[in-house]
Amino acid sequence: MQYTLAELAEKTGAGLSGSGDIIIDRVADINDGQQGSIVFVSNSKYTRFLKDTNASAVIITEKMAHNCGTPALLTDNPRAVFSRVALLLNPLPVVEPWISPHAVIADDAEVDSSARIEACTVIQSGVSVGAGCWISPGCVLEKNVKIGAGTRLFANVTIGEGCVVGNNTILHSGAVIGADGFGFVWDKDAYLKVPQLGSVRIGNDVEIGANTSIDRGAIGDTIVDDGVKIDNQIQLGHNDHIGEHTTISGHTGLSGSVKIGKNCVLGGGVGIGDNVEITDNVVLAGRSNVAKSITEPGMYAGVIPVVEVRKWRRILGWIKQLDELAKRIKALELKNK
Amino acid sequence: MQYTLAELAEKTGAGLSGSGDIIIDRVADINDGQQGSIVFVSNSKYTRFLKDTNASAVIITEKMAHNCGTPALLTDNPRAVFSRVALLLNPLPVVEPWISPHAVIADDAEVDSSARIEACTVIQSGVSVGAGCWISPGCVLEKNVKIGAGTRLFANVTIGEGCVVGNNTILHSGAVIGADGFGFVWDKDAYLKVPQLGSVRIGNDVEIGANTSIDRGAIGDTIVDDGVKIDNQIQLGHNDHIGEHTTISGHTGLSGSVKIGKNCVLGGGVGIGDNVEITDNVVLAGRSNVAKSITEPGMYAGVIPVVEVRKWRRILGWIKQLDELAKRIKALELKNK
Amino acid sequence: MQYTLAELAEKTGAGLSGSGDIIIDRVADINDGQQGSIVFVSNSKYTRFLKDTNASAVIITEKMAHNCGTPALLTDNPRAVFSRVALLLNPLPVVEPWISPHAVIADDAEVDSSARIEACTVIQSGVSVGAGCWISPGCVLEKNVKIGAGTRLFANVTIGEGCVVGNNTILHSGAVIGADGFGFVWDKDAYLKVPQLGSVRIGNDVEIGANTSIDRGAIGDTIVDDGVKIDNQIQLGHNDHIGEHTTISGHTGLSGSVKIGKNCVLGGGVGIGDNVEITDNVVLAGRSNVAKSITEPGMYAGVIPVVEVRKWRRILGWIKQLDELAKRIKALELKNK
Repeated sequence: MQYTLAELAEKTGAGLSGSGDIIIDRVADINDGQQGSIVFVSNSKYTRFLKDTNASAVIITEKMAHNCGTPALLTDNPRAVFSRVALLLNPLPVVEPWISPHAVIADDAEVDSSARIEACTVIQSGVSVGAGCWISPGCVLEKNVKIGAGTRLFANVTIGEGCVVGNNTILHSGAVIGADGFGFVWDKDAYLKVPQLGSVRIGNDVEIGANTSIDRGAIGDTIVDDGVKIDNQIQLGHNDHIGEHTTISGHTGLSGSVKIGKNCVLGGGVGIGDNVEITDNVVLAGRSNVAKSITEPGMYAGVIPVVEVRKWRRILGWIKQLDELAKRIKALELKNK
Repeated sequence: MQYTLAELAEKTGAGLSGSGDIIIDRVADINDGQQGSIVFVSNSKYTRFLKDTNASAVIITEKMAHNCGTPALLTDNPRAVFSRVALLLNPLPVVEPWISPHAVIADDAEVDSSARIEACTVIQSGVSVGAGCWISPGCVLEKNVKIGAGTRLFANVTIGEGCVVGNNTILHSGAVIGADGFGFVWDKDAYLKVPQLGSVRIGNDVEIGANTSIDRGAIGDTIVDDGVKIDNQIQLGHNDHIGEHTTISGHTGLSGSVKIGKNCVLGGGVGIGDNVEITDNVVLAGRSNVAKSITEPGMYAGVIPVVEVRKWRRILGWIKQLDELAKRIKALELKNK
Repeated sequence: MQYTLAELAEKTGAGLSGSGDIIIDRVADINDGQQGSIVFVSNSKYTRFLKDTNASAVIITEKMAHNCGTPALLTDNPRAVFSRVALLLNPLPVVEPWISPHAVIADDAEVDSSARIEACTVIQSGVSVGAGCWISPGCVLEKNVKIGAGTRLFANVTIGEGCVVGNNTILHSGAVIGADGFGFVWDKDAYLKVPQLGSVRIGNDVEIGANTSIDRGAIGDTIVDDGVKIDNQIQLGHNDHIGEHTTISGHTGLSGSVKIGKNCVLGGGVGIGDNVEITDNVVLAGRSNVAKSITEPGMYAGVIPVVEVRKWRRILGWIKQLDELAKRIKALELKNK
């Protein structure tokens, strides 16, 4: 696919600087721009690359324009315009309606005639799949699952009985939605399983990463609101509730009954304990450990970065003796009264 | 399904307080009790909710009974009775024996006639599947796998060659049992793979979470004893041995040859190094790091919770200077001798 | 399979000490050697076991030989020789060429006649599979995937469109190669998805663990070089580049555009932030957190091990007051000037 720069300006709503006739046929990284490509700079740290780029055009803010002899799209949000341009030049494949003869679909399942169901996917009784859905090979949709319109399941996704997925949502390969929550109660001499009776409800415009697992609720449902973006290898527990437009990066794990507000940003490798509530607009640095609720918006952290190992051993030695160090300070203070 | 409160008392062995004729048709959360529902309170912190509940009945301890005008089941363990009631009201589906015509089963595999094997599941040569097993779509049982009676495999579970699973065990979707352990030895100019010749043996009444992986032993087997409960996204390494009735929460990772005792509770996100041995009745707080063996029962921790990020930066600055702080204390002590 | 000790010496290039006629038919652990077995000791800590072993032969260094009355293979690298012996005694199964009638293969896919493709595996249009490959059941190879020669995919592996895998590489069950990277840009009132246009390129002699996910690049590819060994439950982000012969242990997660050098060793549960670059020959202790690039080879650490919980609470109390402790030291110093 190719466009003139003027066409890209028009379609993305960006301003145009320089010749609009230039043909653009691909996006590139700022360090790797070739003729025909368009690149972007959103951070003033990188404006120095602008004058040396071989790209045919750049996407920048108006403020950067005076530094730049290359034809440009001007915008307050270069990365967003770049994303739109990338999508124009690399449009998503049109979903061609098709039911593979190697898909196994229950007689009473309702699959919209515009949907695509690929080989070795199993759709059980009572399932509905909306218009324009695309379900890759190897997926399993258990009984009574409901999938909205325009939703994409990549290969080998599992959705458990009765779970609901909204519209225009993307589930990546290996994701497991609706496994039992981790609920057991000790009863004399063994654990008794607490029945996990709820479901999982996933909203619209959600993205869920590869090999991520989201457990069904124990009583009531686990809920992922509209616009939430969840990375790979993530664990959501039973009855968690993730607010709109919150993002969660890889390897983050939530225990049960955790409530995360809207517009939060959870870094990778974060751990959150049972019943914790986090208000809107909280940013958690990667690897954070959260055992208590957070009621004030803001950024939170609590993780030690690596240092050279011998230095770390000395520091760690003192951490283990902090109690004693504090006593020694106290003793000195008494002497110095 | 519905029962009278008297029937529930009889079937669960709980005491009865108030009218036994009340009809109960569902369980509910203490904050969400409606007519027909039964709720439970196990923690005295929540007894204040008892007087306002709209639930038709409650499950409480005898001690709480004087606060409570609602018909009640009385027990020392309200959560266990609640679990039993939940299961009575929501019985597990009966396993209907069936071999899907879309399952692929080796001629010499032995599948009990009371088992259920669903579509696109592949059962290889020499496998045996016991009475009453239910194997969901998309599972793969490699050669010579043995599955006991009453065991449930949810969709897309993989069990590697020769692994053994006991009775009444549950494996959730995406679990991988019996991949090769991570064993390599540097040999001149590249790593040589150490053959992983062992297997995985999983006991009875075990539960294994979604997208969890348990590696086969290098020499000898990886062993998960009876009654162990393992959450999602967990990694067990080669030759690990998990003792009876130990629970392991999400994202916890064990290196190789780790031995965990009986009745331990491992929180989420815990990491345990190679060859570590942990005795019985150890509780590890979530996110714990264990590099050395633990020989005494008890609770262990070592993780820093999040604080507001500017506060954390100040703390972290001092952590990095602990060595110097300790020297300054030493210098003061010398002056104050 | 069985060999005489002399045959094993010859095939592995090890020296021979004692009778070469002894028949060896299995490998064993040093503590569990029985007649017919061969064991190894590479660490002088374990030489004390040599005199009591019931194994028929041992693999040791020349230095250990004087302590040892048992017939032996002598080598500088006992673990490597042991691995070779284990493979001789337990040879990998020969790949028997076969296309399961239950595999679903696009007409224009090129599958080498010596490859083995098992049931319920789906191979889409434009895919090529090299000589001697073995693809287990339940795998999905999306359009235009290229797999080299001698590569092994265990069950339920997913490889996304256009990804490339080299020769003699092993992918374990549940691995997902080529899901979209986690790229979004906030645009007025919601996140806009950044198209993930790159691919994943995996080299030769690589091993990738169970339920690991490796995302495709955003622009340009995610790259795993030859000889890299990646454990289970790992996350590589878009445009990461892992250098030759680097090993990565379980649950380690890399954000996007991370570059790891050659011959690095990343422990388990490590987290690495966006755009971090790590030079060659770096060792990261398990659970390390790396937010900044590492330019010097060496070993790095920064994680607190568990202690008994009451002791930890006291330490943690002081950590939270480090800022104040430092002020108290400062005040004492002023008094003592």
